[in-house]
Amino acid sequence: MLIKLSIESKKRNDFIEITEIIQNLIKENNFNSGIITLFVPHTTAGITINENADPDVKKDMINFFNEFIPKDYNFSHIEGNSDGHIKSTLFNHSLSLIVENKEIILGTWQGIYFCEFDGPRNRKVYAKFIEG
Amino acid sequence: MLIKLSIESKKRNDFIEITEIIQNLIKENNFNSGIITLFVPHTTAGITINENADPDVKKDMINFFNEFIPKDYNFSHIEGNSDGHIKSTLFNHSLSLIVENKEIILGTWQGIYFCEFDGPRNRKVYAKFIEG
Amino acid sequence: MLIKLSIESKKRNDFIEITEIIQNLIKENNFNSGIITLFVPHTTAGITINENADPDVKKDMINFFNEFIPKDYNFSHIEGNSDGHIKSTLFNHSLSLIVENKEIILGTWQGIYFCEFDGPRNRKVYAKFIEG
Repeated sequence: MLIKLSIESKKRNDFIEITEIIQNLIKENNFNSGIITLFVPHTTAGITINENADPDVKKDMINFFNEFIPKDYNFSHIEGNSDGHIKSTLFNHSLSLIVENKEIILGTWQGIYFCEFDGPRNRKVYAKFIEG
Repeated sequence: MLIKLSIESKKRNDFIEITEIIQNLIKENNFNSGIITLFVPHTTAGITINENADPDVKKDMINFFNEFIPKDYNFSHIEGNSDGHIKSTLFNHSLSLIVENKEIILGTWQGIYFCEFDGPRNRKVYAKFIEG
Repeated sequence: MLIKLSIESKKRNDFIEITEIIQNLIKENNFNSGIITLFVPHTTAGITINENADPDVKKDMINFFNEFIPKDYNFSHIEGNSDGHIKSTLFNHSLSLIVENKEIILGTWQGIYFCEFDGPRNRKVYAKFIEG
């Protein structure tokens, strides 16, 4: 079964935590044990795991990557979002997580984040579960 | 079944689109629904997803990473390709994609790219399909 | 079956090769053919593949990333390890490898590395095998 999630980003660079959404769909669909693969079908968005305790971590990451890959760098692509394309590749589009007893294996401080790099936009994430 | 693909890069830094090759092998092998994992068995190459519409996106990415990780940086490794090793880690070696009804789930503008960082060379990509 | 490995890092930035550990657990558990997913449940550590022949490659990577993401950058997060959180996202937490005839598919020079970015610490890696 293929699951499609809708996500609405609010800013040009926006990290949206989706841990609870993913955990809930695992329980609702009775996925017991296996691998869940999350896939972002966009070229200026990505997915990552990072700390969800102190919001300063998210802020530090967004600011660091904005300074490292400036929007007004000497890019050729005329849409003006090459910075978002580069961030998208650095953050990846696919994330495979282990599920055991209907729970995603995550560390104490880990959250799953959808990462917007050219928002605000309506976005999607696909999820596929493989039993095993 | 393990599938091995051969890829020939033409330049030191070369992004080669392999979307159609992967899509075709899914159809030829009747892979219906599951996960396909692509693996790059090299330490100076990687794999990513990005825009395949405007070729300037590819150009912007290659140029940005060349300036960010200069070949002549103060590296110790005497082969002179430490820049390629670093890019290889940033771009990753493994990519898991969702397959549904014999089609890879990809966004409208997404293409799968083999990324060469120390070419030109003859390279390989392995593909493994898990039904589910 | 979910497998938990313990890893002890010795330095703040420490790349520890785990190829043999992973290969051995595949043999011990008679995993024949499929995908093994490795997962790092930490927000200041990651996992990557890179060259395990010349130790200078590891040294070049650690030095490059230390200069690129300085510990004393203008970060807000008061724990002083935002550099580690950023490296953790760049190196990823999840790695899916192909297994065929009880062997991980790896290139001649490839090794699997647990990457510590805020050590020394006692760390964990989870491994899950899906037959296919």
